[in-house]
Amino acid sequence: MRLTEIRIAGFGGQGVILSAIVIGKAASIYESGFATMTQNFGPEARGGACSAQLVVSDSPVLYPYTTRPDIMVIMSQEAYDRFAHELKPGGMLIVEEDLVRVSNLNRDKQVYAVPATRHAEELGKRMVLNIVMVGFFTAVTRLLSTDAARKAVAESVPASFRELNLKAFDKGYEYGISALAAGAQRPDLEEDLVVSQEMQ
Amino acid sequence: MRLTEIRIAGFGGQGVILSAIVIGKAASIYESGFATMTQNFGPEARGGACSAQLVVSDSPVLYPYTTRPDIMVIMSQEAYDRFAHELKPGGMLIVEEDLVRVSNLNRDKQVYAVPATRHAEELGKRMVLNIVMVGFFTAVTRLLSTDAARKAVAESVPASFRELNLKAFDKGYEYGISALAAGAQRPDLEEDLVVSQEMQ
Repeated sequence: MRLTEIRIAGFGGQGVILSAIVIGKAASIYESGFATMTQNFGPEARGGACSAQLVVSDSPVLYPYTTRPDIMVIMSQEAYDRFAHELKPGGMLIVEEDLVRVSNLNRDKQVYAVPATRHAEELGKRMVLNIVMVGFFTAVTRLLSTDAARKAVAESVPASFRELNLKAFDKGYEYGISALAAGAQRPDLEEDLVVSQEMQ
Repeated sequence: MRLTEIRIAGFGGQGVILSAIVIGKAASIYESGFATMTQNFGPEARGGACSAQLVVSDSPVLYPYTTRPDIMVIMSQEAYDRFAHELKPGGMLIVEEDLVRVSNLNRDKQVYAVPATRHAEELGKRMVLNIVMVGFFTAVTRLLSTDAARKAVAESVPASFRELNLKAFDKGYEYGISALAAGAQRPDLEEDLVVSQEMQ
């Protein structure tokens, strides 16, 4: 596991921080790696946005702030508008399909989209959308072993919600396996328009 | 609010991270300050210990790692044995009274103890011990306004647990006001023994 910088962002109540904690745990406790999660409070938090930075690595993390994330998990349009431009060239963007419209993004990015809220609603609990995202993340990034990620989910949620969260994970994971087989989406047509306008 | 470094530590399941989030929110969203919370995963997390670092300040936090905390909130003996020596000279140590035995600590430290687990059990839910600690913290540190801290509690827990958590906050806060009036404890007699042995 090379040093990988990840940003997870959305709005308050989506469980952004818990999803970062689960990925951090999976990367470290069960993979013998290291991870650091950083959350900033302040003006950026006052707007209802919620964002966590995660650095995972084989060796101890010396600098916990992400500079240019390799991977971004975005669950709201506001978070997209704010952070998407920071994604590293060639980086991977994972979005909540129904909440984020991808535009103005360079074509070198790999985009994977999942309707996590809908999946969560199918399970009867919208609140597990963050764990659907974690399952999807596990499938498409291949950064974590599936077993480590499932264990980290089981360990991070209250016992009474364990089964529900594991179902949410599996749903996101399976959707991710299909998405991976279909290949990453290229940023959408609007972006193409921007590019061609720029070329004129 | 000057730059203040805080470490909160205990064992998994005590809600260490949520208590750090609540304090960070209170310091920033409602006080126009800034806060950064950092959590490390890795070998230290594998032992069941759980620890969060928090830096709060009037201005943006540039370096999120605590070096020598001004304040430590310790909820387990393992966390005490591991972190207590890092506390800044003259710093404040807040402990869960029934879970931590204070020893080998220099006498320049201010110690405040609260039986948070017992208070939480009196409310019928052991899991709110972390919010009892936050209430106690608010009273004895005077770092946050009481109103800001209560609002941060209300905003950080599920709606169905809001009232319970506010009661837990108030219980810890009232206990803290009494503790503050009684004055900080000096590190216990065992420490005195250590000091006199050292002087021989």
